[in-house]
Amino acid sequence: MEPKAKRMRKEWHVPASEMARNTFNPIRSIVDGMKLTPNPEKQMIALSIGDPTVFHNLPIPEDLEDVVIQKIKSRKFNGYNPSIGYEESRQAVAEYTSTETIKYTAKDVILTSGCSMALDLCISVLANRGQNILVPRPGFSIYKTLAESQGIHVKYYDLMPERSWQVDIESLESAIDSNTAAVIINNPSNPCGSVFSRDHLLDILDTASRHKLPIISDEIYEHFVFSGNKYYSLGSLTTDVPILSCSGLTKRFLVPGWRMGWIVITDKNDVMTEVRKGLVSLTQRLLGPTSLVQASLPEILAETPQSFFTDTLGYVEDNANLFYKLISAIPGLRPVKPQGAMYMMIGIDIEKFPGIKDDVDFTEKLVKEQSVFCLPAKCFQYPNYFRIVLTIPKDKVVVACDRMRDFCNDHYMTMVNGHT
Amino acid sequence: MEPKAKRMRKEWHVPASEMARNTFNPIRSIVDGMKLTPNPEKQMIALSIGDPTVFHNLPIPEDLEDVVIQKIKSRKFNGYNPSIGYEESRQAVAEYTSTETIKYTAKDVILTSGCSMALDLCISVLANRGQNILVPRPGFSIYKTLAESQGIHVKYYDLMPERSWQVDIESLESAIDSNTAAVIINNPSNPCGSVFSRDHLLDILDTASRHKLPIISDEIYEHFVFSGNKYYSLGSLTTDVPILSCSGLTKRFLVPGWRMGWIVITDKNDVMTEVRKGLVSLTQRLLGPTSLVQASLPEILAETPQSFFTDTLGYVEDNANLFYKLISAIPGLRPVKPQGAMYMMIGIDIEKFPGIKDDVDFTEKLVKEQSVFCLPAKCFQYPNYFRIVLTIPKDKVVVACDRMRDFCNDHYMTMVNGHT
Ligand SMILES: Cc1ncc(COP(=O)(O)O)c(C=O)c1O
Ligand SMILES: Cc1ncc(COP(=O)(O)O)c(C=O)c1O
Repeated sequence: MEPKAKRMRKEWHVPASEMARNTFNPIRSIVDGMKLTPNPEKQMIALSIGDPTVFHNLPIPEDLEDVVIQKIKSRKFNGYNPSIGYEESRQAVAEYTSTETIKYTAKDVILTSGCSMALDLCISVLANRGQNILVPRPGFSIYKTLAESQGIHVKYYDLMPERSWQVDIESLESAIDSNTAAVIINNPSNPCGSVFSRDHLLDILDTASRHKLPIISDEIYEHFVFSGNKYYSLGSLTTDVPILSCSGLTKRFLVPGWRMGWIVITDKNDVMTEVRKGLVSLTQRLLGPTSLVQASLPEILAETPQSFFTDTLGYVEDNANLFYKLISAIPGLRPVKPQGAMYMMIGIDIEKFPGIKDDVDFTEKLVKEQSVFCLPAKCFQYPNYFRIVLTIPKDKVVVACDRMRDFCNDHYMTMVNGHT
Repeated sequence: MEPKAKRMRKEWHVPASEMARNTFNPIRSIVDGMKLTPNPEKQMIALSIGDPTVFHNLPIPEDLEDVVIQKIKSRKFNGYNPSIGYEESRQAVAEYTSTETIKYTAKDVILTSGCSMALDLCISVLANRGQNILVPRPGFSIYKTLAESQGIHVKYYDLMPERSWQVDIESLESAIDSNTAAVIINNPSNPCGSVFSRDHLLDILDTASRHKLPIISDEIYEHFVFSGNKYYSLGSLTTDVPILSCSGLTKRFLVPGWRMGWIVITDKNDVMTEVRKGLVSLTQRLLGPTSLVQASLPEILAETPQSFFTDTLGYVEDNANLFYKLISAIPGLRPVKPQGAMYMMIGIDIEKFPGIKDDVDFTEKLVKEQSVFCLPAKCFQYPNYFRIVLTIPKDKVVVACDRMRDFCNDHYMTMVNGHT
């Protein structure tokens, strides 16, 4: 036996692991497969990148920088911090997340390297290989990337464009099976820009409760809602459903590169004691986010002036309204009015564009002819829509819409005798 | 079929995943299980913590802070960076790691959140569940933590205390089997403080070459070697063995909390093309280390004055010599002279201490009676040794050794008629 079990390789052959081969970013692979050759006569406008910093039009408050600089100068935060994060920083997140109806403390918080790592830990702690998690369609692609790399399957539940992208509860319910470990809810939503009402969130909780299904609530766009909408965290509404909420500084504070995220645990009936312990264990693998930003959290979360949030949100909402107005007037496009976050989804009446096959073809040609790049919603597992970002400078909004209009006019089916 | 497969849970029951339950830090569980009640009459001296910043006796150079502060003020690094890291920062690591015999470029480098994440990616990309990796005994515990959480087994190869903790090549060779995916080499070593000679590294490479086994080289203590020793990276010596080297700012630059690490790929015969791609895919899960420190790497790596390294190393080496001299004179203890890194291992002649069971018992009683805490080498899978850190203030070295001597004198077996 022994000698047979020996490794007797004669040639170098170093394969990548299954995990590496199963780690797969759908956006990257779709975009990398597209022919993106802009029209050389028009300057490129990228409406594709979910990074609010790229145009330098939305500045972070100076205080934010000063806080981190002070922490660096203090020389007190160069050492290892606890793998779940500094106590004071976790307490700061607890207070930031507490509402009238629910109070958190430091023990309910785990700091992570971005919201991505928060999601990774939550998926890892709840689901085993071979089990599945439910994710929204259309939905942000990282859920799939994180789950499938670990051999956890994803099953989709549908969102309904005609109802502002609310969850199709029936579809959610029918996706649940005996191998379902958790459901991911994303509110406000990327790519939809939707914000769920209190009633709708209660419906979702009711469904989870009946099936005893824990929720991973991706709330990275928390509070980022336009006028007329109100933001509720799932944790503030649940009575029995245990919830792992994921958020961070990334979007609301406009610092995605800082990689500062967190998990907040809501577990009113103590059914997640094991999960809490498991999360702590999992943080010991990578030891958490950089101490410099961690240490800055208490001041950042407590002292960032409200005016900063109002200004940013006002800017994005103005853009949303302008985009919506202009695109609504374009033949063949059906924008869905966003209620928050930084995105809008736009439906394509694809049968009205005889020369265009689908959303990938549409967005590819839009680059080629008009140098405007939008993400095809295929990246979010949804056909014949595309997503635009709302954080770009205002003057570009108008130009981009003009070009989209020209593009659609060029391709929209010609009227024959008044009939299409 | 369908209804049977439905989830019909009546009660809330949210178990932690297998991965969470298998993620396990041996140091934590051993230390948490110890009775650590210091002698109230003596101030505690912790020789246990591998964090060179805890005593504030080893300052980082001011330039290091200033660089990061400038990057923050520039406001250019708040956005997302490429998941493998900024090109310029990767290029900086490439130059920092290049030697006379091997030149790296940015494409050989991946930036990570600490050396821990570098190790995690390397283990993840090379080994599948059910396979094994070989790790040194005694050895740093994170290899086991990272591997086992993913269902990858660890097998041990021995280091030889009587030969300055060189690898027992026979033991290494006999540990290799048909399921072995990689071997981890740690040089300079935690917990041993050993530094391998060029010849010894060539022997290790030869073994790996004969078995066609890729190496993960943990070089987080690179260049941290005492006088009379010379540091060689494995990458600078290999001709055919593909190597993933892991390092970072953590130890040499005294900023473990900053979480800045990296992987450098040595693959002279292009046998790791798949692995390179796999590493890139894996970085898309968590999106890399904080942009602020990343952006600072070029200046930090190129401009930190040599005097800083010399001063730090001189300080630690003086401590090493003092510790070694003082402990050598204590009955029943056998220190192994360190050649680098920040640690020394000390053997206990356990049969000479009749009232003491093993290293855990020894270090527990040392706390209780003398308020000196050292890590039992059980934490490193090695019996009847303990590890001390060499980075503490000099005055504490002497006090700690005095107390160890008193402790050993109290417990060492009494001489009877000149015989022990
Ligand atoms: C819905 C959603 N969740 C999570 C993330 C990841 O956030 P982070 O950059 O903090 O990892 C994003 C980023 O775009 C997102 O849109
Ligand atoms: C040998 C060894 N490798 C890796 C690490 C982890 O380094 P980091 O803190 O950069 O993740 C340590 C930390 O003590 C170590 O001693």
